[in-house]
Formats: sequence, C-alpha cells, structure tokens
Amino acid sequence: MAHYGSRLVVPVDLKKKPWEQELPLHNRWHPEIPPVAEATTGELFRVEMIDFSGGAITQNYTAEDAKHVDLSAVHHLSGPIRIVDNEGIPAHPGDLLAVEICNLGPLPGDEWGFTATFDRENGGGFLTDHFPHATKAIWYFEGIYAYSPQIPGVRFPGITHPGIIGTAPSMELLNIWNERERDVEENGLQSLKLCEVLHSRPLANLPTTKSCLLGKIEKGSDQWEKIAREAARTIPGRENGGNCDIKNLSRGSKVYLPVFVEGANLSTGDMHFSQGDGEVSLCGAIEMSGFLELKCDIIRGGMKEYLTPMGPTPLHVNPIFEIGPVEPRFSEWLVFEGISVDESGKQHYLDASVAYKRAVLNAIDYISKFGYSKEQVYLLLSCCPCEGRISGIVDAPNACATLAIPTAIFDQDIRPKNNKVPIGPRLVRKPDVFKCTYDGNLPITKNPSASS
Amino acid sequence: MAHYGSRLVVPVDLKKKPWEQELPLHNRWHPEIPPVAEATTGELFRVEMIDFSGGAITQNYTAEDAKHVDLSAVHHLSGPIRIVDNEGIPAHPGDLLAVEICNLGPLPGDEWGFTATFDRENGGGFLTDHFPHATKAIWYFEGIYAYSPQIPGVRFPGITHPGIIGTAPSMELLNIWNERERDVEENGLQSLKLCEVLHSRPLANLPTTKSCLLGKIEKGSDQWEKIAREAARTIPGRENGGNCDIKNLSRGSKVYLPVFVEGANLSTGDMHFSQGDGEVSLCGAIEMSGFLELKCDIIRGGMKEYLTPMGPTPLHVNPIFEIGPVEPRFSEWLVFEGISVDESGKQHYLDASVAYKRAVLNAIDYISKFGYSKEQVYLLLSCCPCEGRISGIVDAPNACATLAIPTAIFDQDIRPKNNKVPIGPRLVRKPDVFKCTYDGNLPITKNPSASS
Amino acid sequence: MAHYGSRLVVPVDLKKKPWEQELPLHNRWHPEIPPVAEATTGELFRVEMIDFSGGAITQNYTAEDAKHVDLSAVHHLSGPIRIVDNEGIPAHPGDLLAVEICNLGPLPGDEWGFTATFDRENGGGFLTDHFPHATKAIWYFEGIYAYSPQIPGVRFPGITHPGIIGTAPSMELLNIWNERERDVEENGLQSLKLCEVLHSRPLANLPTTKSCLLGKIEKGSDQWEKIAREAARTIPGRENGGNCDIKNLSRGSKVYLPVFVEGANLSTGDMHFSQGDGEVSLCGAIEMSGFLELKCDIIRGGMKEYLTPMGPTPLHVNPIFEIGPVEPRFSEWLVFEGISVDESGKQHYLDASVAYKRAVLNAIDYISKFGYSKEQVYLLLSCCPCEGRISGIVDAPNACATLAIPTAIFDQDIRPKNNKVPIGPRLVRKPDVFKCTYDGNLPITKNPSASS
Amino acid sequence: MAHYGSRLVVPVDLKKKPWEQELPLHNRWHPEIPPVAEATTGELFRVEMIDFSGGAITQNYTAEDAKHVDLSAVHHLSGPIRIVDNEGIPAHPGDLLAVEICNLGPLPGDEWGFTATFDRENGGGFLTDHFPHATKAIWYFEGIYAYSPQIPGVRFPGITHPGIIGTAPSMELLNIWNERERDVEENGLQSLKLCEVLHSRPLANLPTTKSCLLGKIEKGSDQWEKIAREAARTIPGRENGGNCDIKNLSRGSKVYLPVFVEGANLSTGDMHFSQGDGEVSLCGAIEMSGFLELKCDIIRGGMKEYLTPMGPTPLHVNPIFEIGPVEPRFSEWLVFEGISVDESGKQHYLDASVAYKRAVLNAIDYISKFGYSKEQVYLLLSCCPCEGRISGIVDAPNACATLAIPTAIFDQDIRPKNNKVPIGPRLVRKPDVFKCTYDGNLPITKNPSASS
Repeated sequence: MAHYGSRLVVPVDLKKKPWEQELPLHNRWHPEIPPVAEATTGELFRVEMIDFSGGAITQNYTAEDAKHVDLSAVHHLSGPIRIVDNEGIPAHPGDLLAVEICNLGPLPGDEWGFTATFDRENGGGFLTDHFPHATKAIWYFEGIYAYSPQIPGVRFPGITHPGIIGTAPSMELLNIWNERERDVEENGLQSLKLCEVLHSRPLANLPTTKSCLLGKIEKGSDQWEKIAREAARTIPGRENGGNCDIKNLSRGSKVYLPVFVEGANLSTGDMHFSQGDGEVSLCGAIEMSGFLELKCDIIRGGMKEYLTPMGPTPLHVNPIFEIGPVEPRFSEWLVFEGISVDESGKQHYLDASVAYKRAVLNAIDYISKFGYSKEQVYLLLSCCPCEGRISGIVDAPNACATLAIPTAIFDQDIRPKNNKVPIGPRLVRKPDVFKCTYDGNLPITKNPSASS
Repeated sequence: MAHYGSRLVVPVDLKKKPWEQELPLHNRWHPEIPPVAEATTGELFRVEMIDFSGGAITQNYTAEDAKHVDLSAVHHLSGPIRIVDNEGIPAHPGDLLAVEICNLGPLPGDEWGFTATFDRENGGGFLTDHFPHATKAIWYFEGIYAYSPQIPGVRFPGITHPGIIGTAPSMELLNIWNERERDVEENGLQSLKLCEVLHSRPLANLPTTKSCLLGKIEKGSDQWEKIAREAARTIPGRENGGNCDIKNLSRGSKVYLPVFVEGANLSTGDMHFSQGDGEVSLCGAIEMSGFLELKCDIIRGGMKEYLTPMGPTPLHVNPIFEIGPVEPRFSEWLVFEGISVDESGKQHYLDASVAYKRAVLNAIDYISKFGYSKEQVYLLLSCCPCEGRISGIVDAPNACATLAIPTAIFDQDIRPKNNKVPIGPRLVRKPDVFKCTYDGNLPITKNPSASS
Repeated sequence: MAHYGSRLVVPVDLKKKPWEQELPLHNRWHPEIPPVAEATTGELFRVEMIDFSGGAITQNYTAEDAKHVDLSAVHHLSGPIRIVDNEGIPAHPGDLLAVEICNLGPLPGDEWGFTATFDRENGGGFLTDHFPHATKAIWYFEGIYAYSPQIPGVRFPGITHPGIIGTAPSMELLNIWNERERDVEENGLQSLKLCEVLHSRPLANLPTTKSCLLGKIEKGSDQWEKIAREAARTIPGRENGGNCDIKNLSRGSKVYLPVFVEGANLSTGDMHFSQGDGEVSLCGAIEMSGFLELKCDIIRGGMKEYLTPMGPTPLHVNPIFEIGPVEPRFSEWLVFEGISVDESGKQHYLDASVAYKRAVLNAIDYISKFGYSKEQVYLLLSCCPCEGRISGIVDAPNACATLAIPTAIFDQDIRPKNNKVPIGPRLVRKPDVFKCTYDGNLPITKNPSASS
Repeated sequence: MAHYGSRLVVPVDLKKKPWEQELPLHNRWHPEIPPVAEATTGELFRVEMIDFSGGAITQNYTAEDAKHVDLSAVHHLSGPIRIVDNEGIPAHPGDLLAVEICNLGPLPGDEWGFTATFDRENGGGFLTDHFPHATKAIWYFEGIYAYSPQIPGVRFPGITHPGIIGTAPSMELLNIWNERERDVEENGLQSLKLCEVLHSRPLANLPTTKSCLLGKIEKGSDQWEKIAREAARTIPGRENGGNCDIKNLSRGSKVYLPVFVEGANLSTGDMHFSQGDGEVSLCGAIEMSGFLELKCDIIRGGMKEYLTPMGPTPLHVNPIFEIGPVEPRFSEWLVFEGISVDESGKQHYLDASVAYKRAVLNAIDYISKFGYSKEQVYLLLSCCPCEGRISGIVDAPNACATLAIPTAIFDQDIRPKNNKVPIGPRLVRKPDVFKCTYDGNLPITKNPSASS
C-alpha cells in the first residue's frame, strides 16, 4: 500500500513569535540562509506559514497596529526547503523547479485575515495621495467565503494563493539586485518627473539589518551581520519569483522557478485568502496565516531550455506560471476604464500605471455611490477577486487600463439603471452599527456576523 | 405580431472606397460632424463597418501595404448615429447612453482579417525597438475560428468586438483633449527620461487635415477646413470611450457612454475578430470589416448619477462596461511574468508598462522555442485571446505584470516538460512552405489551408 | 491567396413551400434518397434549413396551428450531402465522418422562433397527462438573446444547435429499425404496466407515405411508393445520429458520425435557437429556420477503430460528440430533484424517466409561484438552457434525476428566501396584458417588446 | 471581536468502530433517533463522518472486502443534529432548512478513498449484467487531485460533496415510504417486463434489524427493536433528501430541506471525493471519510411557501439545491450517446434508464481502446467528474441520454483521429505492473506513485 497524505516539513506555532519558531523563519533573500527542511521530487509535502507581518497586525478592531507596523520586518517566510530528486541529487543551478500547488488554505483554527492601508509616512500605497491614513478591515472566513464587519453587504469566495514563492538567489544575482535598486533609490528622483504625482513613497527597499531574520544564522554573529547587510528585501518580486502576488495562483497551479543555488532553497509565505489584481492598497490582499501542500519536480537544465535571459546576464529571467482549473468563476463583470490622463487633467504618455490608477479611482467613486465610504471600497478592491487589465498600450498618447469587478460579490445590484432608484446615496450600509474608534480608522460594526 | 430582426441603419459597400460610401464615413471626433442615421431606444439596429484602414491594408501576402499605410487616415468609423427615445426626444448632454451589443461579426462574404506591425518610421508599436520592420499575417475565418497561413499550428475561436465605440465630444471636451495632448507632444521629452527606452514614436497624434474624413461635411468647404484642424484623432481612447480595445466587449456586453452632445452621436468601427490584451503590435488585433447589432437605452441624468469626474471639469469621466456571458473560455493558461527592470538591466520604479513589456518579451522568447520566429509570436500575442494583467503595482521598486496565454490554441503541448523532447528547436513549423518575399516581410505558405 | 468564407451548398427560400425548394427537402431516412449536393473534406460549406414544421407553425399569436399540425410531415431536412475527400473519393461504409460545426444561427431576416406543446390527441409531450392542450409561445431574437411576449420577465442567450444531424442508413440498418420499432408498437402495451402513467401517446412512429418528402425522388413514381413505405421517420434518434437534441452541440462542436452508405449522405435540420435538456414539451426547443457552416473530415475505417457495436450486428453503434468551448456559461443554478415515485405516490424501480418527470414537475410548480402560469413554465423549461441530469441510477428503488435552471435568466431573484416577500404569488407577470384567445391557448401580450 | 472558525459538533475517531464512536452513528432514517448535537442558525459548525461502509472496505489492494461487504450496515451517518434559531426555538415541521456547505474535504490524515463494484449476488450495480464481479480501485489524494494505482494515466480534481444529507422523516412520511417500497418489492416483478434486462438485483431495500445502528437508542431495548423494524434504509434518496448523490453539491452550495420533525434532525454522511453523474457502479464514487462545515438558516413556513406536494399528501415533496460557483471546470468534453434500444437490439419506449445504460456502455468500450480494461473504465466513469444528461425524452420510441467526459483527465489525447496511431490497442497502461491477485479483482500496480 502507498503512503498517502502530505508530510509536514515546516510547521509553525501561532502562539510563538516569529523568532521563536522551531524551524526559524527568515525575511530576506540570500544564498547563505541554510535550508531548514528537505523534500523529494514527487513527494507531497506541507509547509505552514505565519502571516506576512508575523502577527504584528492583529485581529483588534483598530488600525493602530497597521499604522505603526515595522515594515523592515516583512515578509516572514517559511523555508528554505532543499529539493532533491528520487536519488537524493539536489536541484542544480540552471535547473527549473516545477512546484505544483496541490492544496492550500488558512491554518485550521486561525480562519481570519486582514486588509489594511498604511500611513503615507509608513509605507503608503498605490493611492496614498488620495488615502493618506492607515485603515484596516478584519475578514472572517466561512469555508470558502470571507466577510468583514467593516465592509458589510459583501461576501465572496476567495481565490486563495501564496503571495510569495521563490528560490534563493545566487550571490551574483543578489549583487545585480542590490546595484540596480540602489541606483533607482539614489538617482531615481531626477527622472521621475512624469510619475511623481503617483508616489511619495521610498523608491526602493534596500537591505537593512533592522528587524532582519535569517533563519538558522545566529543573530549577532559575524555571518549574520554580513548577510543582513547584503540580503535583499522580500518586498519586490524579482528573477527568483518572490512577491509576485499573482492572484490566480491557487489550487492546481504550477510555478516553474529558476534554480540559482544547489538545492533550489525554496521559500514561501505571505498567504492571501483573496486578492485583487494589483493589490492596490499595498497590504491589500486578505493577509493570513496558512498552509501549502506542494509537489516538486526538477527539470534538469530547464533554465537554458525554457527561459530566455532578458538582460545583460543569463540570470535575468522570470519564472513561468501555469494556472489551474479550480477557482471561483464569475459570469458577470462591471468594468471600469482609465486612460493615462491624471487627476489634474495632465496627459501622460502610454503610462499604464497612471491609466490603472484612474481606473481604480473611477471604480472607487462609482461603488461609493452604493452606500460605502471610499476607504471601504479602496480596501475592498484590494482584496476581492477583481481583475486589472492592460487593455491598450499602443494608442499614443493614452494607455487604457481596466478594472473588472464581479457583480455577484455584492448583496445589491450595482449596475447602472434607468432611474429605478432615487438619485444620491441609495443605502448607507448598516449605518447604525458604524463607529469610528480613532482618527483614520475604519468604521466598525458591533455585530460582526455575516450578512449572507 | 412584433417586428423582428434588426434595422440596418448604416450600410457599407466593400467595393467602394471609404469616401464613396452612401452614408459617408468619418475618421475624426468632432461635435459638428452631423449624424448620418437615427435609432430609437429599445430598437435593435445594425451598423456595418469597413476595416480601420479603409481597405488600405489588403489580403495580399506582403507587408508592403502595412509598411506604407497612411496612418493619418485611420480609423474609418460608421456613424454618427443620433439616439432618441420612444417619444422622439434625443439623448441630452449629461445622460448616459447604455449600448448593448446583441450581436456582431465579420461582414458576410468578407471572412478574413489581418494582423500587422508597422515600421519603426511609420507608427511602430509596443516593441518597435525589438521589431522595427513591418510584418503582416492574414487570418481566414472558419465560423468562430481563425487560422493564418503565416502562423501555422495555431487556431483559436475569436472573442469578436469593436475596437472603437464612442459618443461625440462637446467643443469644450475637444478643447481639453487638444490642449493636453499638444502639451505632451511639445513638452513631453524632457520628462520622459524614465520611459524613453520604450518608445521612439510620436508622443501624441494631434489634429491634422491630412486624409481627414468628416462624413457629411463637404470637403474643401470653410466648415471642413475648420473642423479638420480641430477634430481629434481616433487613435487614443478618451473620455467618450473611443479606441478602448477592450477585448472582451463581445456578444451580450453593454457600454455606458457619457453623452456630450444632443443625440449622443454614437460612432463605431475598428472591428476586431480577436485581440490580445494590450494589442501590443499596434495594428495587433485581427482587423476586419464587420457589423454590430445594437440596442440602446438612455439613462437620463446618468452622468451625474453614475460617473464621477476625475479631473478639473465635470467632463473628465470614463465610460463603464459590462461584460457578457458568451465568450470562449479556456481552462488552462501559461503565464509569463515581467518586472519593471528593462532589457538593459536597469531598474524602473513601479512602471507597469515596463513590466508588461518584459512579460511580453518573455512570452515571445519562450514560444519561439516551439518552432516559430519571434515575429510570428509577436503577431500572435497581439491577436490571440491572451490576458494582460497588472498583478502587483505596489511593491517598490518592482511592478509585476503578467501575460496569460491559453494553451489550447496550439496544436502542440507548449508546457515545460522534463526532457521529454530534445533540447533546442523542436519543430520548425512547416519550414518547406516558408518563403520571404521581401525584406521585413513575414514568411508565407504556399498552401493556406488550415491545419486544424 | 486563399479562398475564404463558406460555400453555400444547400440554399432554402423561406417564401417557398418545402416541396418547392430548388434543392428538394426530405423528411425521412432512406439509403436511396439521392444527394442534392457534394462537399469536400477540409472545405467550409454552408447549409440552410427551414424550421422542422416546414412553415406549418407560424408566427401568429394562436396555438391553432400547433394544435392541428401534421406530424407525419416532420422534420424537414436539408441534404443529403455527399462527402468526398480531396481526391474525390467518397466516404465509405465503415468510415467515420467528423463534422465540425464552425458557425450556425437563424437565417438572416427570419430572427424568430416558437415553442409549443401539442394536443394530447396529436403528439402530446412528456407531461401530456398534466398539460393536454396545445399551447405556443413566440420568441424574438435580439442577437444572442431571445425573449417572448408570452413569457415576460425572461430573456436568455441561446445555445444554438441543430436538433438533427445524421447520415443515411444502409438498407440493412433501416430494416433493423423498422423491425424493432414495429415490435414495440405492436407488442409494447402488455409490458408497459410500469410506465403507463407516463404516456398516452403512440408508442413508435412507423413509416407512412402520408406527407412523405423524398428529395429528388419523383412523387408518385414506383420508386417513391416503395421508399415511402420503407423510409424511417425522423422523430427518434438512432444509430445514424438523427434527432439527438443535444443542446450543447453549438459553435466549435464536432460530431463523429458512422458512415453506412457511400458518400455518407449527410442530412441536417430542426434548428434550435435554444433547448433545455430533454426538450420536455416535444416541440420544446425554440424552433426556427437556420444555417450551419460545416467542415468535414473522413476518418477511414473509423467505425471499427472507434465505435463498438452494442447489439447483435456491427451496425448497432452510436455517434460520438465533442462539445466546443463557446457557449453561454452560468455560475448560479437552482436545482430541482425528482425520485422514481410518481404523482399518485406509487413507487417505480430505478426509473430515470419517472424521476426526471417529477423533477420537471417540481420545477414547474416552484417557478409558477413567481407569477407565471404552469403552461408558461412548461414551455420555458423546454427551451431555456436548463440541464437535466441523471444523478443516481443505482440506489434501489429510487432513481434520482435533477433539473438545474440558471437563475440569471429571470428578471427577479427566484431563490428561496426567509420571508422577505409575502407568502403567495408575488408578482403576476404583466397580468393586464394577458388574454386568452381560445381554449388551450397561451395568454398573449399586447405589447411584445422585450422587457430586457 | 468575533468568534471565527467552525465549532466541531460531531467528531469521529477513525481508530474506533462505528458503534464505538463518542457520538453514536446511525444507519437508518427514523423520527425517534435522538439528536446527538445541536447547532444554531448563522453558526458555522463542523461535522465529521466516517466512510459509508464504516471502515469495512479497506485500503488493501484486494476486492475481497468489497465482495463480502454487509450492505445492511450502510450508510454510516453522523447526526442527527437539532437546529434551533438565535432565540433557541427549534425548526418546526413545515419549515425549510437552508443548509449552506461552506467547506468540506477528506479528514486530515486520511487522504484516500475507494471505488468498487459489488458482486452480482451482493448488491450488483447499474451494469451488473456486464460486470458481475466485485472489483476495487484505491485512490490517493494530492490536495485537490486524485490518482489510482489501479487506473494509471488518469488524474483529476475532485468535485467533493456529501452523498447523503437529509432531515429525519415524520412517522407519517416513514409509513408512506415503507408501504410504497414494500409494494414494489412484493408486486414489482409482474410489471417489470420492460426493464428486466436491466436488473437482477433486489427491487427495494426494506427495513431490517440486521446491522442496524440507531445512535443513542440502546441496542436490544424494546425501543430499539421497534425502531429497527420500522426505520427506513438509507440507500434510496427520498422526500427528505438523503442519498441524492448530486455530484456538484460542493463548496458554496445550498440545500433547502423540508422539515418533518421538531429540530429538523439533520444527518449527513457518505462523503465522496468525486463522483460521476449516476454513480453507475453503485459504490461508484470515490468513497471516503470526511468533514463538512455547514451554516443553517430556518425559513419559517417554507415548505408551504416554496415546495409543492407531488402526490397524495403534503409530505410528497423534494428538496431544492443551489449549486455554488467553485468547482473544477473543464472546457472540452467527449460525449457518448445512448438510445433506448438495449444490447439485444430490442426497442424500449422512451426509457431514459436504458438509454443511459447504453451511453455508459458506449463510453466504456470507446475508452477501453486506449489501453484500459473495461473494468477499469467502469470504475473510472463512476467516479470521475463526468456528466450524465437526459438529452431527449419525447421523441418516441427513443429516449436519448448522453455521458460527457472531460478530456483533460487523461494523460493522452482520447479524441478520434485520422489514422495518426495504429489501429488496435494503442498503449497498454503500464502493463508490466498489472497483476491479478484473485478472481474478479482488479489488476494492481507495484508502484503506486502518481503518474502526473
């Protein structure tokens, strides 16, 4: 008889702090962070993860924790996991690591998550110039569904996925990252005239020893100091995969990751119960703890075979993803469009970021006509299964981006209608249960039961 | 008994030139272009359209016509159509015009289309720095399917849609367009440091009297001269809808268009048998002649009710779209990712255009491993039903964009596999029938029958 | 350059009677009915068809024509079409004929259809013991959508398909049909105790010279008399395909038909704009005239290769179907169940027909609570895209069948709710416009415009 | 802060026998079986279940246990659960109980299941005249996927669902069941001429004290004896829901169950990892242990409001189901058809059971051409996500039923092709690892790892 079920290779204990876990976590990318576990090709194995903030953002109905969160400590990743084949031979640099996501979900007993915006002064977000304050919504899970006391009248099935999955970079690749990101941090401003209306946030997230977690590397040791100064932050996605935030990377999907170090050293984390394309509010998915059940295959020599470098070295590659057949599907969508003209009326040149920003703002304004505050809609569009598309990128001077929202997630009909309802706000969503607890916080409800 | 079927309000004759049509066409946006037809709310009416180039790009197996096309003559639109309600009262400025697409398709007897790239010196495209020459592929339609002798081994059902649908702008809105676009044309370069690797094309498409078609306005009259100097080009999408290129705007979809002039003056054209998100090669959809069967409703006062200005005037709005339930659906996708690091290895800041460009280049390189030239894949990704997503727009410094390709459109399995096939080009697609006819042209086949 | 578009091989003229068509129609299956046209493998060809009744059932708002329809004249088929390969060699007995449906639809200018029940004394239907009278609803098409003045508040996109597609039988196969069907007609009653509550209709539809149409065979000739006495009726589906009524056989589907005579002799007809699984009211689809665009391939020796006889001869086979990717898809369904206990409370043994009947009756009763008469719902469930499933066929004594109805086709929410609406009929669907014109007829409306 | 996660109301211990469970199980329907737990409307609660056989069919690679299974002991249900509203008032007879399935799956640590056929002498199945021997396949789960060492080359995502969910019958309803089923058992044979070729199995499953489990009722007591003689078997589905085997009743679905006794007394069990429509081999789903996370609502007076009796008493009703948006969706299907002519060539009259039987036999024969034994395919079609449709039920004398199989579950292309592969069996599926262990058993493999 065969073995069945998955083997737990990385457990987490939610009662412990990130640095107290039995298998120590890490929040940086570096080739020298040692593996904490090993898995064999063909084997079904299970990885557990704490939420990206490591428990810093809590289930409390206040945005204080989101406001003051230490962003130098994110994301808390599980791993690295060394991958070997059936004969014990590890993945080699130049191989492709095929990782199939056979199952995933929240950790049993921890079925809740949060969506937040950060303060303009501490992280910000895509629309931080419109929404400068920290806000937070708590979501409770009822099986496949999520609902939030802070955003009543909405309930949707999640397309659950890991925000981060990646392999360890080689030293050479790490150096490339650090150089190019330091360059934009140091020299970026002079060339940012076009985009500056968009952003008042740090231009890059460079290595820092602050709040650095390096797994089995002993804190305070010389090795720790060296690695901590070099190790890349986990915030941007890069050649090794990492923080890709591909919202459809759910059950049955596959990732083909380039291997840069022996054993591949796979790490994962930042579980999302659901996310909208773009994750616009930065902490915009429904963030949670969770587990993955994975199955790996090694495609020997696959990097050369299947990936083409897109830059000066053979390391300038990107992973490939294969999306699976199991996810909530919606048949009706309302679609908002944006063009690359900004809110001041200024014309930008084929800028998809400006166009998408305008599409998101259009959607926020529209949906706020149905009884929501704009903050509520901003959070909602960050985490519900909406789709952000680049519809046209060639018709100068206007890029055209769209945001498509499934109409079924609302408990009312949000389509335009011919004067069937009085003009003006139609329905304030449960106004009697709203209560602000402090400046910049979201209104909350007294009765958090789902509206379903 | 009821009337049934649609009323043909705008016919075209494919044997005639654009300027010889019974109901004259137009290729500019201007409030003073008079309606050529009228339709009533609730009525099913039919509009026929010639292809965007007005027949300039032909079915010949050469890219010469694409190379020398006069882009000042595009797009050839049918209309304007004045919309009135059941009591004969026209749509008013401030109303919303709800346009339902009940049916559409190629014109009977003209079941073919083309996809092309333009020369770097005459239009270019999203990847013109990689693909500077004009190329062209001819597609033949077999009902819902399209195949091309120039890109063998691929066949897919089209999500057919109009590339352009819009209302006439008011004079005030037209002035806003002309000002802001002239500004980017004149002052754009100094602020384009960040994006300049992307583009060597004109920054905007400003009004020009060259090749101007103004419908019923007599050419050479004083009125013609005035309008031709003022009228906006149809190339970019804007507040009135226009060239949105939303690839899912197919059967059963609805568009909610703002009304800026009395009667709304609806125009449409640029029919696409199929298009990929982004329409990356510029002339990148499968361009064709075609028809629409439409049904309109007027939502009185709907602009104020449902749209929120996103700029200094009440005119800074965007239309809303509702996507219908009938379209080809695919269950398996291969997804390519790009981050905002360009081909030189340079870091850009949260630039979705750079990220999407890299995702497209990654996809082109990957698929070219399966027996295609890169030019073939570039054309294919412009017109097949692939999806371009903004996956992450907040994780500084990298935006993350993805391009998802349905695997079912190929007659081979294009997924990465574990050394099941020899490394290197696997299968040159029908190499014996390829033949270049001139420099910069696509190879063509002798036997254009579908491979199915 | 390639030829494009389809070649019209069988035209029809709707102004002419069935027997006046240029290429004569037929309404029987017989090997000696000569082909009226020829098509080559790989070629896209077009076939036009009149409605199954040959125009006998009209667009009038009365059920008189349905009541008195001559059922010995149905179905009016186009063809036979002889199929040859690229070298002119015809399909041979023993081959498989692969027929791809590339496109289809109503005939331009004839965008309407009808759904009817027949009188208990003239045809009946699945529920004729509950609904003994003839009724009729007229449907008008707005592109992909259908609406009926007789069943207001409902509008749905059609999954359009041919009800009948088949090859000519050989004489040997025809003899098998006639023998076994004569047997059930003559000896059936004694063994029908179990099922008799279901049916008071003729047990089989045997050959008859009445209203027989035999294509090019001259009426009154000796050959005509002989064939007319032998030829099989088109009502039941059989080994050659025929009246399969597979409601998803729409654009992009394929049929693999066994070939019994040289040239295959393909015939088709009985076009349906839409149909529910089971076509319960007999004339239960939205019947219409229409066209098919087809492409054939011959799989030489395919019968032996792919089909297995399921009976005493090698001819006892069934065709295979391949369903395409393009059809309306619905995400929410209300499902009604039936078990094999009949309306008198009597237990039947694993009888899927009884179970399905009860599921249909349950659905009719339920939906009639939302303002419809039961006759309206019976017609609706015959023609809307509902799914009839055999859910359990093994748990003695109860078979379990289900009928699933997409909720999106109604303009109201038809799900059970917790006392949100008063008990009792909620909304009589436009009662002021209902008017019976004669006994057994459906109410009709004065204003046939769609409610959309 | 809100409570989150589900409350476990019925635990099971897989190491214990059915009759040793802490909350005792039951395998009969009777109003006097006392509730073992209580749940409140709006509350998310969790129910655990052992497999339907109570562990009698094991993970061993032999069909001996399936051959000798005691069918009088099935199905082992968890519950009854008494349902009360927020004020503690129980569901009343006449109410509707709305049960939402928020989540479900195998029990953690027990991720495997089985599909079997029973011996003709002990249970049989839909095709027992063709497949008279017991066989068994073991399936292992890799997250959403299942694979079987006994049926290599196939792997599919499950649409997991409970086979049984129902409320307790009232005494009056129980009496109706027992009378009508005794009637078919005693008087059935004389009226079964038409269908007798189908079945050589018991005509009904009448009450029996053998292997009876009655929850908290003490075995051997007078009450136990009385109830055991009266209590209905769980095998057929009936008015209370029960063994409906609706294969799409998965995550996000709802069941609206009639309430016949105070508290509703909800029971559930017979978890299926996956099932084909019809569950043709009787023990034909992938049977497993599992859990449900449920949420109930009481619709007061809902039976009268929403259900219509279909028989002589107000109790002759059926539940309503609402199918959810989350399930694997396939875009390509191969469809096999059957008509109501049996394998001897005999004509039956509109008999959907005969037609479906023939469709299933056609599919078995076809797929066996691709390297499988017919027993393997029979098991596969019982448990993979295939769809059984009643396509035509009115065209006398032939009912037309279809079986649609998603092509994506195979690791080879199973569509008919034009002589691309040699005629005859193409690929014996891993023949070297097949080995029969005893008469009537399925071949098994030595290496049970997935082929993926």
